[in-house]
Amino acid sequence: MSHDPEAPRRSVIGRVARILSAFDRQRRSMPLTVLAQRAGLPVPTTYRLVTELIQHGLLERGPDKEIKIGLRLWELSTRGSDTLSLRDTALPYLEDLHEHLGQLVTLSVLDHGTVLYLERLAPEDFTLERALVAQRHPLHGASSGLVLLAYSPPEFQDEFLQKPLAQYTERTVTDPKILRRMLADIRQRRYSIVPGIGTAGWTGMAVPVFGPKNAVVAALSTVYPQGREDPAAAIPALQSAAFGISMALGATPPARR
Amino acid sequence: MSHDPEAPRRSVIGRVARILSAFDRQRRSMPLTVLAQRAGLPVPTTYRLVTELIQHGLLERGPDKEIKIGLRLWELSTRGSDTLSLRDTALPYLEDLHEHLGQLVTLSVLDHGTVLYLERLAPEDFTLERALVAQRHPLHGASSGLVLLAYSPPEFQDEFLQKPLAQYTERTVTDPKILRRMLADIRQRRYSIVPGIGTAGWTGMAVPVFGPKNAVVAALSTVYPQGREDPAAAIPALQSAAFGISMALGATPPARR
Repeated sequence: MSHDPEAPRRSVIGRVARILSAFDRQRRSMPLTVLAQRAGLPVPTTYRLVTELIQHGLLERGPDKEIKIGLRLWELSTRGSDTLSLRDTALPYLEDLHEHLGQLVTLSVLDHGTVLYLERLAPEDFTLERALVAQRHPLHGASSGLVLLAYSPPEFQDEFLQKPLAQYTERTVTDPKILRRMLADIRQRRYSIVPGIGTAGWTGMAVPVFGPKNAVVAALSTVYPQGREDPAAAIPALQSAAFGISMALGATPPARR
Repeated sequence: MSHDPEAPRRSVIGRVARILSAFDRQRRSMPLTVLAQRAGLPVPTTYRLVTELIQHGLLERGPDKEIKIGLRLWELSTRGSDTLSLRDTALPYLEDLHEHLGQLVTLSVLDHGTVLYLERLAPEDFTLERALVAQRHPLHGASSGLVLLAYSPPEFQDEFLQKPLAQYTERTVTDPKILRRMLADIRQRRYSIVPGIGTAGWTGMAVPVFGPKNAVVAALSTVYPQGREDPAAAIPALQSAAFGISMALGATPPARR
C-alpha cells in the first residue's frame, strides 16, 4: 500500500506500542477482542502481533485466556535502566523517611514533560489514589513537578510555560508569571510547599535529589492532609533523605554549591 | 526472501526483543554500533529499529548519544501488571520484615521456569550481588526457588527435575530424588532453609505467599551469612509477613488449608 520501504516495519512497532498502552491499572488483563478495540487495531492484526509478543514473553496469556503484560517486559525495562537503579539506591532512604514522617513519600523523575513516580511508600489505609508507581502527573499539578521544573533548563521552562496549563483544583497555579516566581523561590529555598495544586485537601512538599555533576535527577516528596502539614518536621527530613541519596549517587556535597 | 507473509512482521518483534535484551545491569547505555553487535543485528537494521523505538519512547538517546532503555517501557510494563501490583501490596510487609530481621529480604515469583526477583531490601553496606531486582536465578539454586518449585504443579516439577541441573556450589542439590524429598519436606513444613545452594557462605530461608484461591503466587525470603542464621527468629517473621501479604491479596486464612 505504501511506497516507503520502511512502512511495514515502522507500523509494527507503532502497533506494538498501541497494544502495550492498552493495559493500565484499571484494566490489567483482557480478551483479545477488547485489546484490539482498546488499541484501535483490527482483531486479526492484534491476534498476529499478540501471538508473537507472547512467544517473546513480552505479553502473557493467563489461565483464563485473557492477555496481560509479560513480566519479561518489566524485567528488560528494569534491569537495563539507569533511572531504576536510582530507585534502588533511594529505597532505603525513602523507607527511613516514611517511617519518620508516617506520611506518603514518593520518588519521581521528569520524563517526557511530566512527573513520573518511580516509588511510593504510603501509610496503611492511605486513601489518596495519586502518585502511584508508574503513574504520571502534570508538572504544575504536583510539588515534585514544581521542583523538577524549577531545576530544569531555562529553555524547557520557557517551552512549558508557553503552553496553556490545565486547572486541576481551585489552587492550581496556571499563570506563567506567578509560576516563574514560584520556581525562582523554589530554587532559592531548595524546596517546594504547595497546598492543593493537584488534589484539593492535600499539601505536597518536595525537594530535589542531585546526581553526578550536581544535576537534579529526581524529586523526593511527601503529602499531608491539608491543615495537618508540618513543614518544620517534613522539610528537614526530606532534605536529609535527599542529601543521603544525592551522596550515594555521586553528587558533590552542597556546602559550596 | 521468505514466502511466509508473516515473516517480516514476526522478525520485527523478534529483533526488538533482541535489542531490548542487549541492555543489562552492567551495560545500561551504549552506542549504536555496540548495541547492534550485542543484539546480533546489522547496524542499518538496528539504526532503523532504534530510531522508531525512540519515537515511541521505548528507547531513549542520552545527551552522550548513547542509547538506553526508555522509562516509557518501564511505565507500560509496570502499571499494567498484576504481578507488580502484588509487589506494591507486599512492600509495607517487606519493610517491616526487613527492619525486624536486619537482613536481606526478597519477594520473588516463578516466571519462565526461573525465580524472578520483584523486590529486595538489603542492609546498608550489603555486599552480596545476588537476588537483585529484575534478576533471575535457577529454581534449585535459591531458597525461594525451592519454595516456588515445591508448590508448583506436579507436571511442572517432573519436567524440571528431568533436565540436568547445574551445580552452582558444593552444596547445590542436583539429584532429582533428593530434590523431591526436599520439596515434600518444604510443603510439609511450609518453609525452606538451605545453606549455600546458590552462593557459598550464605543461607537462604523462604516461605510461600498465597493469593486468591490459595494458589502460591510468590515467595518471601531472607538470606543470612552462614553460621549467623537464626531460623527461630527468621521463620516466624517470614511466615507472619507472608500471612499479611496473603490476606491482603485475598487468600483464605490457612487454619483449615
